[in-house]
Amino acid sequence: MTSTAHLDPTTATAPWSLHPDRALPADPVLRPLAREVYAATRDLPIVSMHGHVDVALFADDTPFGDPAALFVTPDHYLVRMLVAQSTSPHGSPGVRGVQDLGVAPVPGAPDGTAPAETDPREIWRRFCAGWHLFRGTPTRYWTEHALVEVFGAPVKPSAETADALYDHLVDRLARPEYRPRALFERFGLELLATTDPAQSPLADHARLAADGWGERVVPTFRPDPLLHLDRADWATQVAELGAAAGTDVVDYRSYLDALRARRAAFVAAGARATDHGHLTADTTPLDDADAARILDRALRGEATTADARAFSAHMLFQMAAMSAEDGLVLQLHPGVLRDHCAGVAQAYGPDKGYDIPERTEYVRALRPVLEAFGHHPGFRMIAFTVDEDTFSRELAPLAGVYPALRLGAPWWFLDTPDGMRRFREAATDSAGFYNTSGFVDDTRAFCSIPARHDLARRIDAGHLARLVAEHRLDLDEALETAVDLAYHLPQASYPPLSA
Amino acid sequence: MTSTAHLDPTTATAPWSLHPDRALPADPVLRPLAREVYAATRDLPIVSMHGHVDVALFADDTPFGDPAALFVTPDHYLVRMLVAQSTSPHGSPGVRGVQDLGVAPVPGAPDGTAPAETDPREIWRRFCAGWHLFRGTPTRYWTEHALVEVFGAPVKPSAETADALYDHLVDRLARPEYRPRALFERFGLELLATTDPAQSPLADHARLAADGWGERVVPTFRPDPLLHLDRADWATQVAELGAAAGTDVVDYRSYLDALRARRAAFVAAGARATDHGHLTADTTPLDDADAARILDRALRGEATTADARAFSAHMLFQMAAMSAEDGLVLQLHPGVLRDHCAGVAQAYGPDKGYDIPERTEYVRALRPVLEAFGHHPGFRMIAFTVDEDTFSRELAPLAGVYPALRLGAPWWFLDTPDGMRRFREAATDSAGFYNTSGFVDDTRAFCSIPARHDLARRIDAGHLARLVAEHRLDLDEALETAVDLAYHLPQASYPPLSA
Amino acid sequence: MTSTAHLDPTTATAPWSLHPDRALPADPVLRPLAREVYAATRDLPIVSMHGHVDVALFADDTPFGDPAALFVTPDHYLVRMLVAQSTSPHGSPGVRGVQDLGVAPVPGAPDGTAPAETDPREIWRRFCAGWHLFRGTPTRYWTEHALVEVFGAPVKPSAETADALYDHLVDRLARPEYRPRALFERFGLELLATTDPAQSPLADHARLAADGWGERVVPTFRPDPLLHLDRADWATQVAELGAAAGTDVVDYRSYLDALRARRAAFVAAGARATDHGHLTADTTPLDDADAARILDRALRGEATTADARAFSAHMLFQMAAMSAEDGLVLQLHPGVLRDHCAGVAQAYGPDKGYDIPERTEYVRALRPVLEAFGHHPGFRMIAFTVDEDTFSRELAPLAGVYPALRLGAPWWFLDTPDGMRRFREAATDSAGFYNTSGFVDDTRAFCSIPARHDLARRIDAGHLARLVAEHRLDLDEALETAVDLAYHLPQASYPPLSA
Repeated sequence: MTSTAHLDPTTATAPWSLHPDRALPADPVLRPLAREVYAATRDLPIVSMHGHVDVALFADDTPFGDPAALFVTPDHYLVRMLVAQSTSPHGSPGVRGVQDLGVAPVPGAPDGTAPAETDPREIWRRFCAGWHLFRGTPTRYWTEHALVEVFGAPVKPSAETADALYDHLVDRLARPEYRPRALFERFGLELLATTDPAQSPLADHARLAADGWGERVVPTFRPDPLLHLDRADWATQVAELGAAAGTDVVDYRSYLDALRARRAAFVAAGARATDHGHLTADTTPLDDADAARILDRALRGEATTADARAFSAHMLFQMAAMSAEDGLVLQLHPGVLRDHCAGVAQAYGPDKGYDIPERTEYVRALRPVLEAFGHHPGFRMIAFTVDEDTFSRELAPLAGVYPALRLGAPWWFLDTPDGMRRFREAATDSAGFYNTSGFVDDTRAFCSIPARHDLARRIDAGHLARLVAEHRLDLDEALETAVDLAYHLPQASYPPLSA
Repeated sequence: MTSTAHLDPTTATAPWSLHPDRALPADPVLRPLAREVYAATRDLPIVSMHGHVDVALFADDTPFGDPAALFVTPDHYLVRMLVAQSTSPHGSPGVRGVQDLGVAPVPGAPDGTAPAETDPREIWRRFCAGWHLFRGTPTRYWTEHALVEVFGAPVKPSAETADALYDHLVDRLARPEYRPRALFERFGLELLATTDPAQSPLADHARLAADGWGERVVPTFRPDPLLHLDRADWATQVAELGAAAGTDVVDYRSYLDALRARRAAFVAAGARATDHGHLTADTTPLDDADAARILDRALRGEATTADARAFSAHMLFQMAAMSAEDGLVLQLHPGVLRDHCAGVAQAYGPDKGYDIPERTEYVRALRPVLEAFGHHPGFRMIAFTVDEDTFSRELAPLAGVYPALRLGAPWWFLDTPDGMRRFREAATDSAGFYNTSGFVDDTRAFCSIPARHDLARRIDAGHLARLVAEHRLDLDEALETAVDLAYHLPQASYPPLSA
Repeated sequence: MTSTAHLDPTTATAPWSLHPDRALPADPVLRPLAREVYAATRDLPIVSMHGHVDVALFADDTPFGDPAALFVTPDHYLVRMLVAQSTSPHGSPGVRGVQDLGVAPVPGAPDGTAPAETDPREIWRRFCAGWHLFRGTPTRYWTEHALVEVFGAPVKPSAETADALYDHLVDRLARPEYRPRALFERFGLELLATTDPAQSPLADHARLAADGWGERVVPTFRPDPLLHLDRADWATQVAELGAAAGTDVVDYRSYLDALRARRAAFVAAGARATDHGHLTADTTPLDDADAARILDRALRGEATTADARAFSAHMLFQMAAMSAEDGLVLQLHPGVLRDHCAGVAQAYGPDKGYDIPERTEYVRALRPVLEAFGHHPGFRMIAFTVDEDTFSRELAPLAGVYPALRLGAPWWFLDTPDGMRRFREAATDSAGFYNTSGFVDDTRAFCSIPARHDLARRIDAGHLARLVAEHRLDLDEALETAVDLAYHLPQASYPPLSA
């Protein structure tokens, strides 16, 4: 599709820089207002209350790997786009599937599974050759920011510039100021929440705390594999849970006790929240006796699919009950059908770009938890969605009345310039600004964190500028609201528990 | 969250006024066009064809109560937002639940139900202290308009200004020119439709008519409680219906006769429409024999949930059949799950802000009525929705072919600047402008009626201005269309029957 | 509703012309950018890869009929709007139903079915008198373009100008330069794909090819009536299929063989794609034995509704399997409930404007085909939708990972200025530009083809201009992307098979 030559080839030799007004509204009335609002938040510290950066990165503080390992292979946004174009003649040269971007077969992959490309430079070239495919996507936006603002990349990616860029990045990655802790400081990160298995001993967090970083990187309690009885590794995970909690999990009571013990350990380590990825938002509780019977069946390896579905909803309710006790904020991320292509998952493992959003129902699904705990002063729940229809119809009306419920930032496929704009336009009517919980980057791509927060601040600035220009909000209110959205709301939505 | 001081404290002392261009597009090309279009409708009389203002207000013409009773306690938009922030440290000071805003427990409320705040000044202070929570919401927009344009309020609400504002409003409310009939005149209301129970004797309407106001305030026939067999008070309501109709309701035939008699009484009193709030839009009719059997069970107190569901759909079909006979326009308002939190409803009654929209299906649900009466020259149905996805997918395509169906204005949670803009952008493609039925305010807040109609005119002006600026419509057409939307379409959609 | 006189009656006498910037963004920053992007595509040839123009038009090259037969009677967009306003006093004068616009009763129509209006001038007058009803709709936009740009119409339609316009059009239609082949050349059509029944002998295509037009007009394989066992004419159609394929269809095997034979004949005639209209997107395959049993029941006239539903999903899977073999691109058009009003269909036949979109699910429905063939290098599927909620939630995420899937252009009710804009805003985040398949006009209205492609290019220009103005894309990239969307992507999405 690269049918038209670059119109001005001289641009390729100009030093690459990003426009200061990027992602602000183009309208000549809105732009100066948006600039003014953005200026109020641009330099605020980053409070990153939900994400998936590995804590070991900071505990070890070893240099990042090569450019492919940093930017390409682990980034499912990026991998999926290149794979999607792998059969197009001019799409992704050299890419036939995830393996050609460095994704390795899992142990036990079917015979004949193609091996991973092992040359990082070759992977990087494939990415650069497909750069045009990302036009108009958030991946393009985030990657530009990281390359230019974090790494000072001199030229845009392309087949021609791939090697030079690679060498540039390798050089930078070897420097001490590109180590994880140094970048943490440079990014203006005030607080970073990681996501950790419930049974994690939190050893890396302890090492970090010993280095004086305990206030800056905190864990998040993620018990998903323990709550979904139909996961292949459920029994193993439960055994690990028991070991970590010092409790033999032999029945429903000891199972709950072990979860409670781990939650307490997380609170002690500075955790502020739990995180739950469920296929639906269902929170219907079971009778204790029924729950106990299902768990017994699961421990005997006899749980059915219906058992698993009912139990995961029940446990979401139990997690809410425990949150009302211990104060951990319950984050709910429902509605994604994982590993849509079973063949890819069997060969290369989960989360390789084949997770697809589904229609999600919240009104009846959340009713049990909201009726039970929606007015509980100690309970806080943040609901996310990948089904944007629910913003105006379900989530904003719910968050606009129940004190315990906050509406999460646009998630995953919606975490984009236009997605974030539509979110504000759809959710503010019923939820206002103050029943939303602030931006979360939800990323494992550490170097994209500044890009993501900066983009959210720009989009909010544009939205607020429009309200001012339409005389629906005063400028002083817009400035205050922008600061609240960028900084105070995430703090208030995830309050510290040990303080 | 009021973390940033007001940047320009002098603005607080300037007299409060609203910008003449508010809610018009900010774009410098669109704004002058939008101004011109808006100017063509700004001073047109208000035709308010659907709402919930109590007719007794005008029959008695006694002064309004205190500011809290006028603005806060009965307004579920406002109450819900303050409740939603009741556990936030800087959210709604002094608000722990609906009771702190003056909402009183119902008879039979559970023991321990918190009593209502009885000091209206205190309630008003709580509202003013939470004013920042409404930023970007329609409540903010409507309240500003009412305070400034109707009441000449000198300062914006805040914790600091609450008392002064309260005193100002009390002073105004005591004046004769703030009585209901005087405001009716001042608002430029040409016609106001109220909503009345089917069994209402319409005595207040008769009193008004005797005063010469019969052409200006007309009733609307609302039989909901009689059509939903599972309502706790169904039997009582049916007894009242029989009494009002002079018919003993002992079976299906006498039930229908009584409804028909009341419809005739409403027509005689000037009614133009019926109004139906159902959980779904289902209009599937039953065999008469089945309907009769279900009604018999209901009269014996033995109707099941399935009976109730089937019967309410059947009766919607019957209402359409009667409309085709007597000409009353059938208004359908489906898709809201009422009283999501049962505990609040048990303590404080229905409609306290816990009504939540649900996904709503229209294509198959409306098919029985549309196949039967969709081309009937005497039948007119107006469908509303709180599920905006249905505008482009279902309702505009249906209204764009069936002569009897008109698409209602964006309803409830969608009755907002951005909601109304999205409605025009989504519905016009398939329905055009002339298969929509004009703005309805649907409000019980009498003093917000001018704000709501004015806002709708501004949003339509902005939409039409964009069509003109994009050369998709001529300016003279835009001006004519604006006047049609604001004035002629509501009239034509709800034609008088007694003329 | 034509309550306000035209403000400037002189405009009616000025020669009618269209603004060169129509449908470009009004914003003063965006418009010059959009103009520049649009200029890069305005004069590109039209590649019309999916539509419903009758091939006989070009094979015969006889003049078009009268203005009513060309513009009104066969255009269901237009008919439906006039019918929708048929009971409005000022809506569609003289229109009581489809018959008054020339739609004729079908053989076997119920007694009393109103006959069709047979005077084309009268039909034309009715259309012109209802011209105001189309304000803001795509019909208005396309018709303006066709009247002015194709036919040089001197005045806008209205009750007053109807006769003069009619005479003007009759004069033009009699000229040789308005014959189908001459217009084909004038429209800059490079390639036009028709849609043809699977059992079509493709005789008109052969005649055209004999005239040297074989590279310019190609057939598309449409087997719908053969795959839906519950269609009344299924047995007849299957008999025709057997005859065309030279195979007696007596069982499942011969049924598949006959379909395969016809696909081969289509490929030989230059076809590039198949087309499938199903109520849902379900692609769940059956066991061969089950499929064979169902087909046997259907051949005996004993298939059930459940059989028909399961079999159509199964056959969609089979069509994908055959596409993976022969290379025909599988186009899927699901989610429209046909003939919502059974009475109109019985009297006047299908597709008279009563087709209504439904909520459509893709994630699980497409899973069987995508798991089986989603990475097959020879398979290409293009999914369309009339449920725009699925763009951001389902279709863009799916098209953004599976190499075989492309996202079709906004279809039918969404093929509008605002619909196309929303499509780009919703789909680009996850699918980018290069997993979409380019604009298709999908029309049977030959004279509207230039209007539709031109409009799509303008909307894409506006979208790309915004990305440039927001510094999310460079201008040179925008120009290249615009050309790709308008010209290269439709070519690449439907590659030639015989080359």
